[in-house]
Amino acid sequence: MKDLLIDQNSGDSIKVKVKNVVFGEKEKVIISGPCSVESYDIMIRIGKELKDMGVHMLRGGAFKPRTSPYDFQGLKEEGLEIIKAVGEEVKLPIVTEVMDARDIDNALNYTDMIQIGSRNMYNYTLLKEVGRTKAPILLKRGLSATISEWLYAAEYIMSEGNNNVVLCERGIRTFENYTRNTLDLNSVAVVKQKYRIPVIVDPSHGTGLRELVPTMSLASIAAGADGLIIESHISPDNSVSDARQTISMESLKNIVSGIKKLEEVL
Amino acid sequence: MKDLLIDQNSGDSIKVKVKNVVFGEKEKVIISGPCSVESYDIMIRIGKELKDMGVHMLRGGAFKPRTSPYDFQGLKEEGLEIIKAVGEEVKLPIVTEVMDARDIDNALNYTDMIQIGSRNMYNYTLLKEVGRTKAPILLKRGLSATISEWLYAAEYIMSEGNNNVVLCERGIRTFENYTRNTLDLNSVAVVKQKYRIPVIVDPSHGTGLRELVPTMSLASIAAGADGLIIESHISPDNSVSDARQTISMESLKNIVSGIKKLEEVL
Amino acid sequence: MKDLLIDQNSGDSIKVKVKNVVFGEKEKVIISGPCSVESYDIMIRIGKELKDMGVHMLRGGAFKPRTSPYDFQGLKEEGLEIIKAVGEEVKLPIVTEVMDARDIDNALNYTDMIQIGSRNMYNYTLLKEVGRTKAPILLKRGLSATISEWLYAAEYIMSEGNNNVVLCERGIRTFENYTRNTLDLNSVAVVKQKYRIPVIVDPSHGTGLRELVPTMSLASIAAGADGLIIESHISPDNSVSDARQTISMESLKNIVSGIKKLEEVL
Amino acid sequence: MKDLLIDQNSGDSIKVKVKNVVFGEKEKVIISGPCSVESYDIMIRIGKELKDMGVHMLRGGAFKPRTSPYDFQGLKEEGLEIIKAVGEEVKLPIVTEVMDARDIDNALNYTDMIQIGSRNMYNYTLLKEVGRTKAPILLKRGLSATISEWLYAAEYIMSEGNNNVVLCERGIRTFENYTRNTLDLNSVAVVKQKYRIPVIVDPSHGTGLRELVPTMSLASIAAGADGLIIESHISPDNSVSDARQTISMESLKNIVSGIKKLEEVL
Repeated sequence: MKDLLIDQNSGDSIKVKVKNVVFGEKEKVIISGPCSVESYDIMIRIGKELKDMGVHMLRGGAFKPRTSPYDFQGLKEEGLEIIKAVGEEVKLPIVTEVMDARDIDNALNYTDMIQIGSRNMYNYTLLKEVGRTKAPILLKRGLSATISEWLYAAEYIMSEGNNNVVLCERGIRTFENYTRNTLDLNSVAVVKQKYRIPVIVDPSHGTGLRELVPTMSLASIAAGADGLIIESHISPDNSVSDARQTISMESLKNIVSGIKKLEEVL
Repeated sequence: MKDLLIDQNSGDSIKVKVKNVVFGEKEKVIISGPCSVESYDIMIRIGKELKDMGVHMLRGGAFKPRTSPYDFQGLKEEGLEIIKAVGEEVKLPIVTEVMDARDIDNALNYTDMIQIGSRNMYNYTLLKEVGRTKAPILLKRGLSATISEWLYAAEYIMSEGNNNVVLCERGIRTFENYTRNTLDLNSVAVVKQKYRIPVIVDPSHGTGLRELVPTMSLASIAAGADGLIIESHISPDNSVSDARQTISMESLKNIVSGIKKLEEVL
Repeated sequence: MKDLLIDQNSGDSIKVKVKNVVFGEKEKVIISGPCSVESYDIMIRIGKELKDMGVHMLRGGAFKPRTSPYDFQGLKEEGLEIIKAVGEEVKLPIVTEVMDARDIDNALNYTDMIQIGSRNMYNYTLLKEVGRTKAPILLKRGLSATISEWLYAAEYIMSEGNNNVVLCERGIRTFENYTRNTLDLNSVAVVKQKYRIPVIVDPSHGTGLRELVPTMSLASIAAGADGLIIESHISPDNSVSDARQTISMESLKNIVSGIKKLEEVL
Repeated sequence: MKDLLIDQNSGDSIKVKVKNVVFGEKEKVIISGPCSVESYDIMIRIGKELKDMGVHMLRGGAFKPRTSPYDFQGLKEEGLEIIKAVGEEVKLPIVTEVMDARDIDNALNYTDMIQIGSRNMYNYTLLKEVGRTKAPILLKRGLSATISEWLYAAEYIMSEGNNNVVLCERGIRTFENYTRNTLDLNSVAVVKQKYRIPVIVDPSHGTGLRELVPTMSLASIAAGADGLIIESHISPDNSVSDARQTISMESLKNIVSGIKKLEEVL
């Protein structure tokens, strides 16, 4: 993997700016919000709480990739409108997933950062197209992508001219079934030591169990992550998707303050 | 997984017709050809040999999903033209991969069957769009897709109105590194016993080693597969991609005759 | 892996004789019986049926390795006595598992072949000690052992002077959870092509689902296996262990006759 | 998994004492030393350095489980004598692996804590026998053991009367091959939250790459681990085994001081 744009030898370490938020600086970036955008009412209540506790960015899925075609697939355009309105109101940049290259232009009318989800990490068509924009991209690791394939996916984006790539470790598929996925923090250490793009961690999908999220958030930061993306909700048990791994506002507050303390030591 | 269109309870077992070839009948369907379409000269020589030995369909990649953006990505449109010309000349239906929903309409001017590759099995956008055509679809199992997720991917296509789906087991990602992938023939037995769509096997990717392809072809048929898709070349060592798993014409001939004998017993 | 005793270059292919049964000849060896030895009454009824239908050897666990210390651990010495008595009465050689090096000498008073179970494949102490006997050894692949580690485990036995080793593929641990394990028939093809010891397959553990056992038995033989070891019971649902993967006498009879037909073709 | 001795409901959280060292208290326990005991000269130099920098216990393998029977298998009895002598001289308790139940009594003449290695986690014979001693046991997670199986292995020891069990996460086997294993820190969070025995982490085997050890040591502690076991050597590149993952004295000193700082925050 020599002579790649992601390689440290190819240039300075990359900082990715999303409005006033910067990935790759000392301050860790915390992104949070519900799995799916459900309604304006719920979203604005969540958004205000997140803003108050010092979270840096707002997340929420409008287009949801689901295993079954009969499961809730997201509010789509309406979801984008809601999350944009809330982001503007509470003054937090937003990130949301795009699954189809034809939706990119429109999505950029709404979102500040585009998420490429795990299931689309090998969707080279989509990677190249977001590479032709200047938008910040959050690139999740594929369900069973090797570290090397994940880095090459970033290279697909950068090779088209867009260096604004932030990686996101979200757990890999293994034989272990106590947890939903196996969070691979080795991968974070590898990226930080040998490559020049920022990397954050998603402990919600990485564990699948809300009670493990606070501890694994700290562990992720200690492993060198530049930030976290955490599923939270004002009423976690009532989330329309991923309820089992969604944490409360209270729990998130404790994580935010725990990260602050950890930042000082590291 | 009750009340799904793929379920045996939802109707008769499905036969998928591609011109004069039928998947799901007693006769096993053998598809072969090079990993990538390289040139007309090579393709026509391969095509004639395949036709002569009794292979039923011709394969060849025009759009190639590759781990690195700097690797050969296929001849694209030119590749489609070549494989179409050869298919018509030797009178074999063809199958080739489509990676982008925007390419479907054009691809259908060339190919008789559309392949959805492993890396795109979770690309629900693409699945839905091929579901809106009437074209026969060859749906490869994702690199680490569970059997259940793979079946739901077929359901995505069928739920849009297209029942012409053939599954393809091509090996899964495990800790084993002697072989490129671990061919999971259990999955074939599951599909044949409990679901109503045909399933074939790709022993080339399933092993990654040409010397294992003949044996694993027989094992696949014994496991109940409705056919095989095998990478072959007139000069395997000179294949531009996947040379290590590509077999010679000689070797393929032996497989074809071995399958014939096996069909009689089973 | 050069210059190993298991390598084909190190000598002729090895035939392992257990009384009148030979592993590595054209005739495939079928071993069957219950997961655990339960009682003389049940065992003798099973033994007679197996003998009548042409099964070659009798299996049954007396010492059972179990995940929980509170689960049934086998009849131990009493189990050995029962299986020996039944083996002699129905004139079938027997195979049973030994878990502790200190039990080997005593076990050899009862059994014709010693099984090293999956959980003990890395138990090098045990491997060396059975290597110092002349007894035929059935060496199961570890739950997640690579093919290479499994071959080295055989080498541990052979390097102590005992060449009577039969490998047994029994499925590996992967992310797939529809089946109990993922039966890796690639491994059988590798062993047959490159090494000189016999290899059989255990489709019971390899699938964990009784309805898949007949098909996967045929696939195993087509992949080149020298035989099969299958859990069966006169009343499968009442097996004290592994009931879900245990087949009936009726089902086993069909497998035996299916294998006969397949032998003729291959 | 109700009503198990390891369960928090079954009693107070367990502290395991090894001489003056206690696992399960606020202070994190750091164990270090070479992969294999090589000679008295090397061991005493390592031992003195470790003592000076505040490491709590000394490790070193005398009996080495190796994939090939032809690889160095350890100094055995002589190795035990060396590590005991060094431990006494530098006043550090020692831990070393036992692979054979017949060696336990003798090993207890030398070592303060017995390690059950990954390859023996399912060796129930060995687990039960160490359960009949009062010795502190370090129980490594099996190469591909589920969290549940690992906990049951501890239960095997405790059910025989020995509660002095410390678990050790050391990475699991996955498809990822950039690192030797995938360190599963989720498992540490699970054990700390739901069970009552201490757990430490082995970042050396958990990564296989010395440059990742410092970062993953911090991440392990942040995940809640009660300590670390790290392979170190005065001349890492000259280690007779596991050189690639063995760190220098210098590097270890930085880890020790990093852990101290982290302890204060957590």
